[in-house]
Amino acid sequence: MKIGVPKEIKTLEFRVGMVPSGVRELVHDGHEVIVETNAGIGIGMTDADYEKAGATVVAKAESVFAEADLIVKVKEPQLIECAMLRPDQVLFTYLHLAADPEQAKALVDSGTTAIAYETVTAEDGSLPLLTPMSEVAGRLSIQAGAYALQKANGGRGVLLGGVPGVAPGKVVIIGGGIAGTNAAEMAIGLGAQVTIIDRSVPKLREIDGIYGGRVRTEYSTKHSIELCVTDADLVVCAV
Amino acid sequence: MKIGVPKEIKTLEFRVGMVPSGVRELVHDGHEVIVETNAGIGIGMTDADYEKAGATVVAKAESVFAEADLIVKVKEPQLIECAMLRPDQVLFTYLHLAADPEQAKALVDSGTTAIAYETVTAEDGSLPLLTPMSEVAGRLSIQAGAYALQKANGGRGVLLGGVPGVAPGKVVIIGGGIAGTNAAEMAIGLGAQVTIIDRSVPKLREIDGIYGGRVRTEYSTKHSIELCVTDADLVVCAV
Amino acid sequence: MKIGVPKEIKTLEFRVGMVPSGVRELVHDGHEVIVETNAGIGIGMTDADYEKAGATVVAKAESVFAEADLIVKVKEPQLIECAMLRPDQVLFTYLHLAADPEQAKALVDSGTTAIAYETVTAEDGSLPLLTPMSEVAGRLSIQAGAYALQKANGGRGVLLGGVPGVAPGKVVIIGGGIAGTNAAEMAIGLGAQVTIIDRSVPKLREIDGIYGGRVRTEYSTKHSIELCVTDADLVVCAV
Amino acid sequence: MKIGVPKEIKTLEFRVGMVPSGVRELVHDGHEVIVETNAGIGIGMTDADYEKAGATVVAKAESVFAEADLIVKVKEPQLIECAMLRPDQVLFTYLHLAADPEQAKALVDSGTTAIAYETVTAEDGSLPLLTPMSEVAGRLSIQAGAYALQKANGGRGVLLGGVPGVAPGKVVIIGGGIAGTNAAEMAIGLGAQVTIIDRSVPKLREIDGIYGGRVRTEYSTKHSIELCVTDADLVVCAV
Amino acid sequence: MKIGVPKEIKTLEFRVGMVPSGVRELVHDGHEVIVETNAGIGIGMTDADYEKAGATVVAKAESVFAEADLIVKVKEPQLIECAMLRPDQVLFTYLHLAADPEQAKALVDSGTTAIAYETVTAEDGSLPLLTPMSEVAGRLSIQAGAYALQKANGGRGVLLGGVPGVAPGKVVIIGGGIAGTNAAEMAIGLGAQVTIIDRSVPKLREIDGIYGGRVRTEYSTKHSIELCVTDADLVVCAV
Amino acid sequence: MKIGVPKEIKTLEFRVGMVPSGVRELVHDGHEVIVETNAGIGIGMTDADYEKAGATVVAKAESVFAEADLIVKVKEPQLIECAMLRPDQVLFTYLHLAADPEQAKALVDSGTTAIAYETVTAEDGSLPLLTPMSEVAGRLSIQAGAYALQKANGGRGVLLGGVPGVAPGKVVIIGGGIAGTNAAEMAIGLGAQVTIIDRSVPKLREIDGIYGGRVRTEYSTKHSIELCVTDADLVVCAV
Repeated sequence: MKIGVPKEIKTLEFRVGMVPSGVRELVHDGHEVIVETNAGIGIGMTDADYEKAGATVVAKAESVFAEADLIVKVKEPQLIECAMLRPDQVLFTYLHLAADPEQAKALVDSGTTAIAYETVTAEDGSLPLLTPMSEVAGRLSIQAGAYALQKANGGRGVLLGGVPGVAPGKVVIIGGGIAGTNAAEMAIGLGAQVTIIDRSVPKLREIDGIYGGRVRTEYSTKHSIELCVTDADLVVCAV
Repeated sequence: MKIGVPKEIKTLEFRVGMVPSGVRELVHDGHEVIVETNAGIGIGMTDADYEKAGATVVAKAESVFAEADLIVKVKEPQLIECAMLRPDQVLFTYLHLAADPEQAKALVDSGTTAIAYETVTAEDGSLPLLTPMSEVAGRLSIQAGAYALQKANGGRGVLLGGVPGVAPGKVVIIGGGIAGTNAAEMAIGLGAQVTIIDRSVPKLREIDGIYGGRVRTEYSTKHSIELCVTDADLVVCAV
Repeated sequence: MKIGVPKEIKTLEFRVGMVPSGVRELVHDGHEVIVETNAGIGIGMTDADYEKAGATVVAKAESVFAEADLIVKVKEPQLIECAMLRPDQVLFTYLHLAADPEQAKALVDSGTTAIAYETVTAEDGSLPLLTPMSEVAGRLSIQAGAYALQKANGGRGVLLGGVPGVAPGKVVIIGGGIAGTNAAEMAIGLGAQVTIIDRSVPKLREIDGIYGGRVRTEYSTKHSIELCVTDADLVVCAV
Repeated sequence: MKIGVPKEIKTLEFRVGMVPSGVRELVHDGHEVIVETNAGIGIGMTDADYEKAGATVVAKAESVFAEADLIVKVKEPQLIECAMLRPDQVLFTYLHLAADPEQAKALVDSGTTAIAYETVTAEDGSLPLLTPMSEVAGRLSIQAGAYALQKANGGRGVLLGGVPGVAPGKVVIIGGGIAGTNAAEMAIGLGAQVTIIDRSVPKLREIDGIYGGRVRTEYSTKHSIELCVTDADLVVCAV
Repeated sequence: MKIGVPKEIKTLEFRVGMVPSGVRELVHDGHEVIVETNAGIGIGMTDADYEKAGATVVAKAESVFAEADLIVKVKEPQLIECAMLRPDQVLFTYLHLAADPEQAKALVDSGTTAIAYETVTAEDGSLPLLTPMSEVAGRLSIQAGAYALQKANGGRGVLLGGVPGVAPGKVVIIGGGIAGTNAAEMAIGLGAQVTIIDRSVPKLREIDGIYGGRVRTEYSTKHSIELCVTDADLVVCAV
Repeated sequence: MKIGVPKEIKTLEFRVGMVPSGVRELVHDGHEVIVETNAGIGIGMTDADYEKAGATVVAKAESVFAEADLIVKVKEPQLIECAMLRPDQVLFTYLHLAADPEQAKALVDSGTTAIAYETVTAEDGSLPLLTPMSEVAGRLSIQAGAYALQKANGGRGVLLGGVPGVAPGKVVIIGGGIAGTNAAEMAIGLGAQVTIIDRSVPKLREIDGIYGGRVRTEYSTKHSIELCVTDADLVVCAV
């Protein structure tokens, strides 16, 4: 199969649909991979890296879309990209169509078969292509929160871990799923006092089993949320 | 040297001045050890255990006091014991004379050389024979506190570790010395939310280094004590 | 729906069927909650707390039973309570009917629809309303055992965690289910040497994975139980 | 003694020389404390908080300097402050004179007795008033570094803790003192791969003892620094 | 049922099909157990141990095979053993027939009903009699590797845990199943720098959750394997 | 200064007195370093590595000894080496003279100034050049012991960490110094049940503080050693 990887063109999108090691796997299995020049530049991968992995690097997105049977991207296709898609092609990317009717229409008009990453479902009902996004989001949330709490950044001047003799900051995480537990791990790591609120007692039990005395688990009620949130330095909503 | 170990006679004192393994060390080093019958019964050691270790078991305290050059006990000598002490004897035991002028007088009258465990000082200024008492006291304090918090024992019905979904109990320990850190370890172990208050920031730093996010350290001020204590389920005074 | 919460009347029962935060959730969802005066007094909740959460506080149990469509309790209904139940009511509480034929008969005679907490089963076969009881029982067992081992309480004078230089106490837990692992956590926390015996190797494997070197796992045979139990300071039966 | 706490006037200095709980201690010991209005506003402490703690709040810095025997500040005195200092006064603050000859001269001219926080030395040679600054700096360094590594902030897009399947970022900390170990704790907490380089093997041994397999310790040579630094995502210089 | 336990006769096989505590369980349940003399000698169990557990010890393997309805062994039957098996017997042991056609033929000729340990499957698809072998193999692999890395044993002289100031050895484990994670635990325990490579991201996620920052997880690609393996001191193949 | 590094010639000695990174430091500080060819071959360092670091590589030991003011070695000088030493030279190496009178005499005869690594003492009384040897020895002891316990190596077939359902091996370490605690760390890491015996209660207290429930500490008496050692699978003597 001919697989194409165009450079992402959405503003502030630095990622790329496939890394060179992915190219190498596909080429090894007999596929052909066409990559737009500089597609990996945002993550520090050069055209030479892709070529070494077996890809053909081409100068223009048009060439990628023209030749490939399968297009692998990160972000939803922009209008200019939709115009290049064909009915006999498959597009594999995040779509988030609900929020973007204009894109949805262009995509339908293209006649392409589009598979949204966010809808790929594993046998056990999990969403394997969304989970890493939740992991990253959960971990980043605490990093962002710690930064925002610094006085110089307009925060209240609380250091999440405190220092000996000074109490640590209070982090309340609403939701004990993937994003929530990843946030909790970072907050624990920085030394904060962490509370996780969830509606599922079995989930709280699992969290209690993993983090023991390092996380306070609270069953979610209007009352517990009210108490915890009004007392918190940082609230992470991970529902 | 002849070393005598009488049975303790103070009410509710179950301990004994020397265990059989201690007897064995001394006998091996050429000393003679005389033990009153049933001296070790309170800790589950029989006369046979002492004899196997090399001691001579005698029927009466009088024989122990009459023959020994050194008397090894646990508790301060009772008046009946002071009457048996002689000027050419050495007594090694806890004395706590300050609290007991009658005993102090009897001891002085006996003319014996009494060395109080609680005053034995190591080169670095520590009190090696008091430290284990502080360790035991610190560890027991949480056990006693947990028991006292049970509703059936007249407490407020708080389980120190909570259960998943229910917040743990709050334990505040005033003083981060030996008793305090031993109490903290047990409280952490039971899953409580633990705060240690101390006037020494280096000590708080040390505690923070050991227990990391599991203990909140607070510098001792009237304000911090007031805040912590009024919010606590269990307060351990370990100063 | 009108939901009634009577004060528990069984001897030594301090709990209550619903806390104020539960009332608040139900009232928010459009239900009416009627609470008997002083129903929450045993857990430190006042009538004012219930009223603030949206409940109507009434003076007598009779009023609660007379008005409510659903009665939420903790303990099995006493005979005087059974007499107030009606066929068009639902009773939600722990029943434990097997042990109490008199109550069973009174309940049948009342014609009420009684749902026993202990029989509520989740999709995965777990018993969500029994699990927290096992958690509490497991955690309390070690607290009770530690207390009972104290010499002053008639025990053999063993401190579960020992102190440096003195070996810790040996705790053997038969059964690695919810009660057993909760007991294990507390025993580990107090510094004891802990062995869990179970007939399921996968369960032992899971326990080994969680507690690593802190728990010794033994496959349950007559031989292993005999060896472990005769060597233990504290045995917790959690089967 | 009359102790004065003026509001800090250096740009971007939000701190204050004394918190209300400090005032309370001093007033309790018989001292008088005079605080400039809004002195604590940057850390969320109101004049009312100070008054409740026993301070007298005055409207102008001039009044503080005029009345106090001891001035407690955070930052080095600005020229306008030096002009208010008197020979019979003591100033207690961070001075950092070496970097600021103009201030040094003004301070000398004032004739005041100035004690620099950064020079206060404990019996064991440690610097008790600098240590907390190193703790804060070390902890903040990782927070700042993690933020700077985000692509959106101009970094190379490395998440310090990685996610499962993606290797974590590499943090190299040069110097294993207070700032270095505090940085290491935060970096470990965020899941990074951490190396500490130091010239003292005993210090590396101590660090290895505390963080075990979570930190790689390297003896400092030109070679080891070169290797580690060129391979790192984040370098913290904490010498 | 009459159950027979012959002594293993394969070279270097020290194990035995049943330990005395297993005998005790079966005898208690009404079975009869016949054990060949010295069957347990390789694991330190004497004939007296088996007799005390209720077994009948016989002098020859022939007697065991002649009398038993069920033969319990460890290793595949040797030809001499196959000759003693009968059609009305059941044999329970590891078979590994694929690797040994001669044995397979002899077994078929014997007409016995042979159940291979390695094919016994639990309801959840796991292999309960193979899992412990994987656990042992995984744990031993690191022990063997550490030994082989010693210079005196022909290795490159790398101590897996390093010492303070000297970086630890790098262990790469390919496969995150039972053998792989057991190997990882030992490698972590010895202080090595551990990477696990697996094709399943959910498995890597689970491993990351358990070992946190102590294991680096890498998604398996040709590229990641190449990078990790060429940089490793010890590679464990646990696929 | 001219510093010489000859190749070690004692049987089974693979080490070298200085690694290339050490050469680089000395050359940077203005010294000259002369290294015998293949001196580093046993640790994987080539002549090119030494030359890149700034050393001069010479073909014969004679040239090293002839030119250098300071000789840096690992092992005690062999007779052939003693013959090359001069009164105006300094020798820096492990000597262990007490065990080797012949060497001692040759060394005295050479008139060289010999500084034994094992006698270099730090201000706090520690032996900085012996400590790493104790660390290595302690860590290796468990590796060697684990290997020796394997049945195939003539041991009793005990896996130190056991597996779930089978109790771990018992390791008793006599002496809680550097070698002892390093051995303990490895034994804990492999999952063994570890006991440390020492005559110093403060040391046991320190060990208890670090390893908590993972190590049993026993005060050293004839009795405790007898009990522990007779019950152990592996005894490490680290006194």
